[in-house]
Amino acid sequence: MTSARPSGPIRTRDAAATRRALLAAGRELFASEGFDRTTVRAVAERAGVNQALLFRYFGNKEGLFAEAIRDDALEVLEAGPRRDLLERTVATLFHASSAADAEPLLAVLRGASSSQIGAEVRQQLADSYVSAFADLVDTPDRADAVLRAELFLSWLLGISLSRSADLPGHSLDEVAAQAHLLRAARALLGPLPATLATDPPGS
Amino acid sequence: MTSARPSGPIRTRDAAATRRALLAAGRELFASEGFDRTTVRAVAERAGVNQALLFRYFGNKEGLFAEAIRDDALEVLEAGPRRDLLERTVATLFHASSAADAEPLLAVLRGASSSQIGAEVRQQLADSYVSAFADLVDTPDRADAVLRAELFLSWLLGISLSRSADLPGHSLDEVAAQAHLLRAARALLGPLPATLATDPPGS
Repeated sequence: MTSARPSGPIRTRDAAATRRALLAAGRELFASEGFDRTTVRAVAERAGVNQALLFRYFGNKEGLFAEAIRDDALEVLEAGPRRDLLERTVATLFHASSAADAEPLLAVLRGASSSQIGAEVRQQLADSYVSAFADLVDTPDRADAVLRAELFLSWLLGISLSRSADLPGHSLDEVAAQAHLLRAARALLGPLPATLATDPPGS
Repeated sequence: MTSARPSGPIRTRDAAATRRALLAAGRELFASEGFDRTTVRAVAERAGVNQALLFRYFGNKEGLFAEAIRDDALEVLEAGPRRDLLERTVATLFHASSAADAEPLLAVLRGASSSQIGAEVRQQLADSYVSAFADLVDTPDRADAVLRAELFLSWLLGISLSRSADLPGHSLDEVAAQAHLLRAARALLGPLPATLATDPPGS
Protein backbone atom coordinates (compact mmCIF):
# COMPACT_ATOMS: atom_id res chain seq x y z
CA MET A 1 0.00 0.00 0.00
CA THR A 2 3.02 2.32 -0.40
CA SER A 3 2.77 4.78 -3.25
CA ALA A 4 5.46 4.38 -5.91
CA ARG A 5 7.88 7.28 -6.21
CA PRO A 6 9.88 6.60 -9.36
CA SER A 7 12.99 8.69 -8.73
CA GLY A 8 16.70 8.11 -8.26
CA PRO A 9 18.54 4.75 -8.54
CA ILE A 10 15.62 2.60 -7.36
CA ARG A 11 13.42 3.71 -10.24
CA THR A 12 13.81 0.47 -12.24
CA ARG A 13 13.10 -1.81 -9.31
CA ASP A 14 10.09 0.31 -8.37
CA ALA A 15 8.79 0.22 -11.91
CA ALA A 16 8.98 -3.58 -12.04
CA ALA A 17 7.29 -3.90 -8.65
CA THR A 18 4.57 -1.45 -9.66
CA ARG A 19 3.90 -3.34 -12.91
CA ARG A 20 3.64 -6.59 -10.97
CA ALA A 21 1.30 -5.03 -8.41
CA LEU A 22 -0.95 -3.62 -11.15
CA LEU A 23 -1.00 -6.95 -13.00
CA ALA A 24 -1.87 -8.84 -9.83
CA ALA A 25 -4.61 -6.39 -8.90
CA GLY A 26 -5.97 -6.45 -12.46
CA ARG A 27 -6.07 -10.25 -12.54
CA GLU A 28 -7.98 -10.39 -9.27
CA LEU A 29 -10.54 -7.80 -10.33
CA PHE A 30 -10.99 -9.11 -13.89
CA ALA A 31 -11.63 -12.56 -12.39
CA SER A 32 -14.07 -11.41 -9.70
CA GLU A 33 -15.78 -8.45 -11.41
CA GLY A 34 -15.33 -9.19 -15.10
CA PHE A 35 -13.66 -6.90 -17.61
CA ASP A 36 -16.49 -4.41 -18.04
CA ARG A 37 -17.12 -3.77 -14.35
CA THR A 38 -13.45 -3.41 -13.50
CA THR A 39 -12.33 0.23 -13.43
CA VAL A 40 -8.82 1.59 -13.80
CA ARG A 41 -9.33 3.43 -10.52
CA ALA A 42 -10.18 0.21 -8.66
CA VAL A 43 -7.15 -1.62 -10.06
CA ALA A 44 -4.83 1.23 -9.10
CA GLU A 45 -6.33 1.44 -5.60
CA ARG A 46 -5.98 -2.29 -5.07
CA ALA A 47 -2.36 -2.14 -6.23
CA GLY A 48 -1.75 0.84 -3.96
CA VAL A 49 -0.41 3.06 -6.73
CA ASN A 50 -1.57 6.15 -8.62
CA GLN A 51 -3.69 5.29 -11.66
CA ALA A 52 -1.44 7.47 -13.81
CA LEU A 53 1.10 4.65 -13.49
CA LEU A 54 -1.37 2.16 -14.94
CA PHE A 55 -1.73 4.36 -18.01
CA ARG A 56 2.06 4.80 -18.17
CA TYR A 57 2.87 1.07 -18.07
CA PHE A 58 -0.12 -0.47 -19.88
CA GLY A 59 -1.65 2.32 -21.94
CA ASN A 60 -5.22 1.56 -20.85
CA LYS A 61 -7.44 -1.09 -19.28
CA GLU A 62 -7.33 -3.19 -22.46
CA GLY A 63 -3.54 -3.18 -22.39
CA LEU A 64 -3.48 -4.34 -18.77
CA PHE A 65 -5.97 -7.09 -19.58
CA ALA A 66 -4.01 -8.29 -22.60
CA GLU A 67 -0.83 -8.56 -20.57
CA ALA A 68 -2.57 -10.31 -17.66
CA ILE A 69 -4.18 -12.82 -20.02
CA ARG A 70 -0.91 -13.41 -21.85
CA ASP A 71 1.02 -14.15 -18.70
CA ASP A 72 -1.69 -16.49 -17.41
CA ALA A 73 -2.08 -18.24 -20.76
CA LEU A 74 1.63 -18.86 -21.07
CA GLU A 75 1.67 -20.10 -17.48
CA VAL A 76 -0.66 -22.98 -18.52
CA LEU A 77 2.03 -24.03 -20.99
CA GLU A 78 4.77 -23.88 -18.35
CA ALA A 79 2.84 -25.21 -15.34
CA GLY A 80 4.48 -28.65 -15.52
CA PRO A 81 6.74 -30.85 -17.62
CA ARG A 82 6.19 -30.49 -21.35
CA ARG A 83 5.49 -34.20 -21.72
CA ASP A 84 2.29 -33.72 -19.65
CA LEU A 85 1.13 -30.71 -21.68
CA LEU A 86 -1.64 -32.60 -23.50
CA GLU A 87 -3.15 -34.04 -20.33
CA ARG A 88 -2.74 -30.73 -18.46
CA THR A 89 -4.43 -28.70 -21.18
CA VAL A 90 -7.34 -31.11 -21.53
CA ALA A 91 -7.84 -31.09 -17.76
CA THR A 92 -7.79 -27.29 -17.73
CA LEU A 93 -10.38 -27.13 -20.50
CA PHE A 94 -12.78 -29.52 -18.83
CA HIS A 95 -12.69 -27.66 -15.55
CA ALA A 96 -13.52 -24.45 -17.37
CA SER A 97 -17.16 -24.35 -16.35
CA SER A 98 -16.33 -24.17 -12.66
CA ALA A 99 -12.98 -22.40 -12.40
CA ALA A 100 -11.94 -18.99 -13.67
CA ASP A 101 -8.43 -20.28 -14.22
CA ALA A 102 -9.39 -21.83 -17.55
CA GLU A 103 -10.22 -18.33 -18.79
CA PRO A 104 -6.76 -17.64 -20.26
CA LEU A 105 -6.89 -20.89 -22.24
CA LEU A 106 -10.37 -20.06 -23.52
CA ALA A 107 -9.15 -16.58 -24.40
CA VAL A 108 -6.48 -18.15 -26.60
CA LEU A 109 -8.90 -20.56 -28.25
CA ARG A 110 -11.63 -18.00 -28.87
CA GLY A 111 -9.16 -15.22 -29.57
CA ALA A 112 -10.85 -13.86 -32.65
CA SER A 113 -14.07 -13.14 -30.83
CA SER A 114 -12.44 -11.35 -27.91
CA SER A 115 -12.37 -7.65 -28.61
CA GLN A 116 -10.46 -6.96 -25.40
CA ILE A 117 -7.26 -8.55 -26.62
CA GLY A 118 -5.35 -6.86 -29.38
CA ALA A 119 -4.45 -8.73 -32.55
CA GLU A 120 -0.77 -8.77 -31.61
CA VAL A 121 -1.29 -10.49 -28.25
CA ARG A 122 -3.76 -12.91 -29.83
CA GLN A 123 -1.25 -13.91 -32.49
CA GLN A 124 1.51 -14.24 -29.92
CA LEU A 125 -0.61 -16.53 -27.74
CA ALA A 126 -1.79 -18.60 -30.68
CA ASP A 127 1.79 -19.03 -31.90
CA SER A 128 2.96 -20.07 -28.42
CA TYR A 129 0.25 -22.71 -28.16
CA VAL A 130 0.65 -24.06 -31.67
CA SER A 131 4.41 -24.22 -31.18
CA ALA A 132 4.16 -25.97 -27.81
CA PHE A 133 1.84 -28.66 -29.18
CA ALA A 134 3.86 -29.03 -32.37
CA ASP A 135 6.84 -29.83 -30.12
CA LEU A 136 4.91 -32.91 -28.94
CA VAL A 137 4.89 -34.38 -32.45
CA ASP A 138 7.84 -36.63 -33.22
CA THR A 139 8.56 -35.65 -36.81
CA PRO A 140 11.28 -33.71 -38.63
CA ASP A 141 8.47 -32.21 -40.79
CA ARG A 142 7.68 -29.03 -38.83
CA ALA A 143 4.78 -28.06 -41.12
CA ASP A 144 3.12 -31.40 -40.42
CA ALA A 145 3.69 -31.00 -36.68
CA VAL A 146 2.13 -27.52 -36.80
CA LEU A 147 -0.83 -28.84 -38.78
CA ARG A 148 -1.53 -31.52 -36.18
CA ALA A 149 -1.19 -28.97 -33.36
CA GLU A 150 -3.65 -26.65 -35.11
CA LEU A 151 -6.12 -29.48 -35.57
CA PHE A 152 -5.87 -30.29 -31.89
CA LEU A 153 -6.40 -26.66 -30.85
CA SER A 154 -9.38 -26.36 -33.18
CA TRP A 155 -10.87 -29.36 -31.38
CA LEU A 156 -10.44 -27.68 -28.01
CA LEU A 157 -12.12 -24.59 -29.45
CA GLY A 158 -15.06 -26.64 -30.71
CA ILE A 159 -15.44 -28.41 -27.37
CA SER A 160 -15.31 -25.16 -25.41
CA LEU A 161 -17.99 -23.64 -27.64
CA SER A 162 -20.18 -26.73 -27.60
CA ARG A 163 -20.05 -26.84 -23.82
CA SER A 164 -21.13 -23.22 -23.56
CA ALA A 165 -23.98 -23.30 -26.08
CA ASP A 166 -27.00 -25.20 -27.19
CA LEU A 167 -25.02 -27.36 -29.61
CA PRO A 168 -24.24 -31.04 -29.99
CA GLY A 169 -21.84 -31.73 -27.14
CA HIS A 170 -23.16 -29.24 -24.62
CA SER A 171 -23.78 -32.05 -22.17
CA LEU A 172 -20.42 -33.74 -22.57
CA ASP A 173 -19.64 -35.93 -19.59
CA GLU A 174 -16.35 -34.69 -18.21
CA VAL A 175 -14.49 -37.81 -17.18
CA ALA A 176 -15.49 -40.03 -20.08
CA ALA A 177 -15.06 -37.18 -22.57
CA GLN A 178 -11.52 -36.43 -21.35
CA ALA A 179 -10.53 -40.06 -21.78
CA HIS A 180 -11.92 -40.22 -25.33
CA LEU A 181 -10.37 -36.88 -26.25
CA LEU A 182 -6.95 -37.92 -24.94
CA ARG A 183 -7.03 -41.23 -26.80
CA ALA A 184 -7.93 -39.55 -30.08
CA ALA A 185 -5.46 -36.69 -29.51
CA ARG A 186 -2.65 -39.20 -28.99
CA ALA A 187 -3.62 -40.82 -32.29
CA LEU A 188 -3.53 -37.37 -33.87
CA LEU A 189 -0.21 -36.21 -32.43
CA GLY A 190 1.53 -39.59 -32.34
CA PRO A 191 4.00 -40.85 -29.70
CA LEU A 192 6.07 -38.24 -27.87
CA PRO A 193 9.57 -37.50 -29.10
CA ALA A 194 12.13 -39.50 -27.12
CA THR A 195 13.67 -36.31 -25.73
CA LEU A 196 10.38 -35.37 -24.06
CA ALA A 197 9.44 -38.87 -22.95
CA THR A 198 12.68 -39.09 -20.96
CA ASP A 199 12.34 -35.68 -19.30
CA PRO A 200 13.39 -35.93 -15.69
CA PRO A 201 10.31 -35.52 -13.41
CA GLY A 202 9.48 -31.92 -12.66
CA SER A 203 11.53 -30.56 -15.54
CA MET B 1 -45.42 -22.46 -64.24
CA THR B 2 -49.04 -23.48 -63.63
CA SER B 3 -50.76 -21.84 -60.71
CA ALA B 4 -51.90 -24.22 -57.98
CA ARG B 5 -55.67 -24.54 -57.63
CA PRO B 6 -56.19 -26.55 -54.46
CA SER B 7 -59.67 -27.96 -55.08
CA GLY B 8 -61.25 -31.35 -55.63
CA PRO B 9 -59.48 -34.75 -55.56
CA ILE B 10 -56.09 -33.47 -56.78
CA ARG B 11 -55.66 -31.10 -53.83
CA THR B 12 -53.12 -33.28 -51.96
CA ARG B 13 -50.99 -33.94 -55.01
CA ASP B 14 -51.00 -30.24 -55.91
CA ALA B 15 -50.03 -29.27 -52.38
CA ALA B 16 -47.05 -31.64 -52.38
CA ALA B 17 -45.92 -30.43 -55.79
CA THR B 18 -46.27 -26.79 -54.73
CA ARG B 19 -44.26 -27.39 -51.57
CA ARG B 20 -41.53 -29.08 -53.59
CA ALA B 21 -41.50 -26.24 -56.13
CA LEU B 22 -41.25 -23.62 -53.38
CA LEU B 23 -38.47 -25.55 -51.61
CA ALA B 24 -36.50 -25.93 -54.86
CA ALA B 25 -36.92 -22.25 -55.74
CA GLY B 26 -35.96 -21.23 -52.21
CA ARG B 27 -32.82 -23.38 -52.23
CA GLU B 28 -31.68 -21.89 -55.51
CA LEU B 29 -32.26 -18.30 -54.41
CA PHE B 30 -30.84 -18.74 -50.89
CA ALA B 31 -27.71 -20.23 -52.47
CA SER B 32 -27.28 -17.56 -55.15
CA GLU B 33 -28.63 -14.46 -53.37
CA GLY B 34 -28.21 -15.28 -49.69
CA PHE B 35 -30.98 -15.32 -47.11
CA ASP B 36 -31.34 -11.57 -46.65
CA ARG B 37 -31.57 -10.65 -50.33
CA THR B 38 -34.04 -13.42 -51.13
CA THR B 39 -37.64 -12.18 -51.10
CA VAL B 40 -40.79 -14.22 -50.65
CA ARG B 41 -42.08 -12.71 -53.90
CA ALA B 42 -39.01 -13.89 -55.83
CA VAL B 43 -39.28 -17.42 -54.47
CA ALA B 44 -42.97 -17.62 -55.34
CA GLU B 45 -42.36 -16.26 -58.84
CA ARG B 46 -39.55 -18.72 -59.47
CA ALA B 47 -41.76 -21.56 -58.26
CA GLY B 48 -44.60 -20.29 -60.44
CA VAL B 49 -47.09 -20.12 -57.59
CA ASN B 50 -48.87 -17.40 -55.65
CA GLN B 51 -46.86 -16.20 -52.66
CA ALA B 52 -49.88 -16.76 -50.43
CA LEU B 53 -49.09 -20.47 -50.80
CA LEU B 54 -45.58 -19.93 -49.42
CA PHE B 55 -47.09 -18.39 -46.32
CA ARG B 56 -49.65 -21.20 -46.11
CA TYR B 57 -47.11 -24.03 -46.30
CA PHE B 58 -44.06 -22.52 -44.57
CA GLY B 59 -45.38 -19.66 -42.45
CA ASN B 60 -42.70 -17.21 -43.61
CA LYS B 61 -39.30 -16.96 -45.26
CA GLU B 62 -37.57 -18.30 -42.13
CA GLY B 63 -39.81 -21.36 -42.18
CA LEU B 64 -38.99 -22.06 -45.82
CA PHE B 65 -35.28 -21.65 -45.11
CA ALA B 66 -35.39 -23.98 -42.10
CA GLU B 67 -37.08 -26.69 -44.11
CA ALA B 68 -34.71 -26.29 -47.07
CA ILE B 69 -31.68 -26.49 -44.77
CA ARG B 70 -33.11 -29.48 -42.94
CA ASP B 71 -33.72 -31.46 -46.09
CA ASP B 72 -30.24 -30.64 -47.43
CA ALA B 73 -28.54 -31.40 -44.12
CA LEU B 74 -30.25 -34.75 -43.80
CA GLU B 75 -29.30 -35.49 -47.41
CA VAL B 76 -25.60 -35.35 -46.40
CA LEU B 77 -26.33 -38.14 -43.94
CA GLU B 78 -28.10 -40.23 -46.57
CA ALA B 79 -25.91 -39.46 -49.60
CA GLY B 80 -24.11 -42.83 -49.44
CA PRO B 81 -23.68 -45.98 -47.36
CA ARG B 82 -23.62 -45.34 -43.63
CA ARG B 83 -20.20 -46.99 -43.29
CA ASP B 84 -18.70 -44.14 -45.36
CA LEU B 85 -20.41 -41.43 -43.30
CA LEU B 86 -17.24 -40.34 -41.49
CA GLU B 87 -15.20 -39.96 -44.68
CA ARG B 88 -18.11 -38.31 -46.52
CA THR B 89 -18.71 -35.75 -43.77
CA VAL B 90 -15.03 -34.85 -43.44
CA ALA B 91 -14.77 -34.41 -47.20
CA THR B 92 -17.84 -32.18 -47.19
CA LEU B 93 -16.41 -30.04 -44.41
CA PHE B 94 -13.08 -29.52 -46.09
CA HIS B 95 -14.65 -28.44 -49.34
CA ALA B 96 -16.70 -25.87 -47.47
CA SER B 97 -14.62 -22.89 -48.49
CA SER B 98 -15.30 -23.39 -52.17
CA ALA B 99 -18.71 -25.03 -52.44
CA ALA B 100 -22.07 -23.86 -51.21
CA ASP B 101 -23.13 -27.47 -50.66
CA ALA B 102 -21.30 -27.62 -47.33
CA GLU B 103 -23.62 -24.89 -46.07
CA PRO B 104 -26.20 -27.27 -44.59
CA LEU B 105 -23.50 -29.13 -42.63
CA LEU B 106 -22.09 -25.85 -41.34
CA ALA B 107 -25.61 -24.76 -40.43
CA VAL B 108 -25.92 -27.86 -38.26
CA LEU B 109 -22.53 -27.35 -36.63
CA ARG B 110 -22.99 -23.65 -35.98
CA GLY B 111 -26.69 -24.01 -35.30
CA ALA B 112 -26.78 -21.89 -32.19
CA SER B 113 -25.47 -18.82 -33.97
CA SER B 114 -27.92 -19.01 -36.87
CA SER B 115 -30.93 -16.87 -36.09
CA GLN B 116 -32.67 -17.94 -39.28
CA ILE B 117 -33.26 -21.48 -38.10
CA GLY B 118 -35.70 -22.06 -35.31
CA ALA B 119 -34.68 -23.91 -32.17
CA GLU B 120 -36.84 -26.89 -33.09
CA VAL B 121 -35.20 -27.46 -36.47
CA ARG B 122 -31.75 -26.93 -34.94
CA GLN B 123 -32.42 -29.57 -32.30
CA GLN B 124 -33.81 -31.96 -34.89
CA LEU B 125 -30.73 -31.60 -37.10
CA ALA B 126 -28.33 -31.92 -34.17
CA ASP B 127 -30.12 -35.05 -32.98
CA SER B 128 -30.01 -36.57 -36.46
CA TYR B 129 -26.27 -35.97 -36.76
CA VAL B 130 -25.40 -37.14 -33.25
CA SER B 131 -27.53 -40.24 -33.76
CA ALA B 132 -25.99 -41.06 -37.15
CA PHE B 133 -22.44 -40.82 -35.80
CA ALA B 134 -23.33 -42.68 -32.61
CA ASP B 135 -24.50 -45.52 -34.87
CA LEU B 136 -20.89 -45.82 -36.08
CA VAL B 137 -19.68 -46.70 -32.57
CA ASP B 138 -19.63 -50.42 -31.83
CA THR B 139 -20.84 -50.43 -28.24
CA PRO B 140 -24.02 -51.46 -26.42
CA ASP B 141 -23.53 -48.33 -24.23
CA ARG B 142 -25.60 -45.79 -26.16
CA ALA B 143 -24.66 -42.90 -23.86
CA ASP B 144 -20.99 -43.55 -24.58
CA ALA B 145 -21.64 -43.74 -28.32
CA VAL B 146 -23.51 -40.41 -28.18
CA LEU B 147 -20.67 -38.84 -26.18
CA ARG B 148 -18.11 -39.86 -28.82
CA ALA B 149 -20.37 -38.60 -31.60
CA GLU B 150 -20.75 -35.25 -29.84
CA LEU B 151 -16.99 -34.96 -29.38
CA PHE B 152 -16.51 -35.61 -33.08
CA LEU B 153 -19.11 -33.02 -34.10
CA SER B 154 -17.56 -30.47 -31.76
CA TRP B 155 -14.26 -31.07 -33.57
CA LEU B 156 -15.89 -30.36 -36.93
CA LEU B 157 -17.35 -27.18 -35.46
CA GLY B 158 -13.94 -26.07 -34.20
CA ILE B 159 -12.32 -26.79 -37.56
CA SER B 160 -15.00 -24.94 -39.50
CA LEU B 161 -14.62 -21.90 -37.23
CA SER B 162 -10.82 -22.00 -37.30
CA ARG B 163 -10.82 -22.13 -41.07
CA SER B 164 -13.09 -19.10 -41.29
CA ALA B 165 -11.30 -16.89 -38.76
CA ASP B 166 -7.94 -15.66 -37.66
CA LEU B 167 -7.44 -18.52 -35.24
CA PRO B 168 -4.97 -21.37 -34.88
CA GLY B 169 -5.87 -23.69 -37.73
CA HIS B 170 -7.06 -21.13 -40.24
CA SER B 171 -4.41 -22.30 -42.68
CA LEU B 172 -5.11 -26.00 -42.34
CA ASP B 173 -3.82 -27.87 -45.34
CA GLU B 174 -6.78 -29.74 -46.77
CA VAL B 175 -5.39 -33.10 -47.82
CA ALA B 176 -3.01 -33.66 -44.91
CA ALA B 177 -5.53 -32.31 -42.42
CA GLN B 178 -8.25 -34.68 -43.64
CA ALA B 179 -5.93 -37.66 -43.24
CA HIS B 180 -4.98 -36.67 -39.68
CA LEU B 181 -8.57 -35.92 -38.75
CA LEU B 182 -9.80 -39.27 -40.09
CA ARG B 183 -7.09 -41.20 -38.26
CA ALA B 184 -7.88 -39.50 -34.96
CA ALA B 185 -11.64 -39.76 -35.51
CA ARG B 186 -11.33 -43.52 -36.05
CA ALA B 187 -9.42 -43.72 -32.75
CA LEU B 188 -12.25 -41.74 -31.15
CA LEU B 189 -15.16 -43.70 -32.60
CA GLY B 190 -13.50 -47.13 -32.71
CA PRO B 191 -13.97 -49.84 -35.36
CA LEU B 192 -17.30 -49.92 -37.19
CA PRO B 193 -20.00 -52.29 -35.95
CA ALA B 194 -19.95 -55.53 -37.96
CA THR B 195 -23.42 -54.84 -39.35
CA LEU B 196 -22.23 -51.62 -40.99
CA ALA B 197 -18.87 -52.95 -42.14
CA THR B 198 -20.66 -55.65 -44.13
CA ASP B 199 -23.23 -53.32 -45.70
CA PRO B 200 -23.74 -54.23 -49.33
CA PRO B 201 -22.31 -51.47 -51.56
CA GLY B 202 -24.76 -48.68 -52.23
CA SER B 203 -27.00 -49.48 -49.28
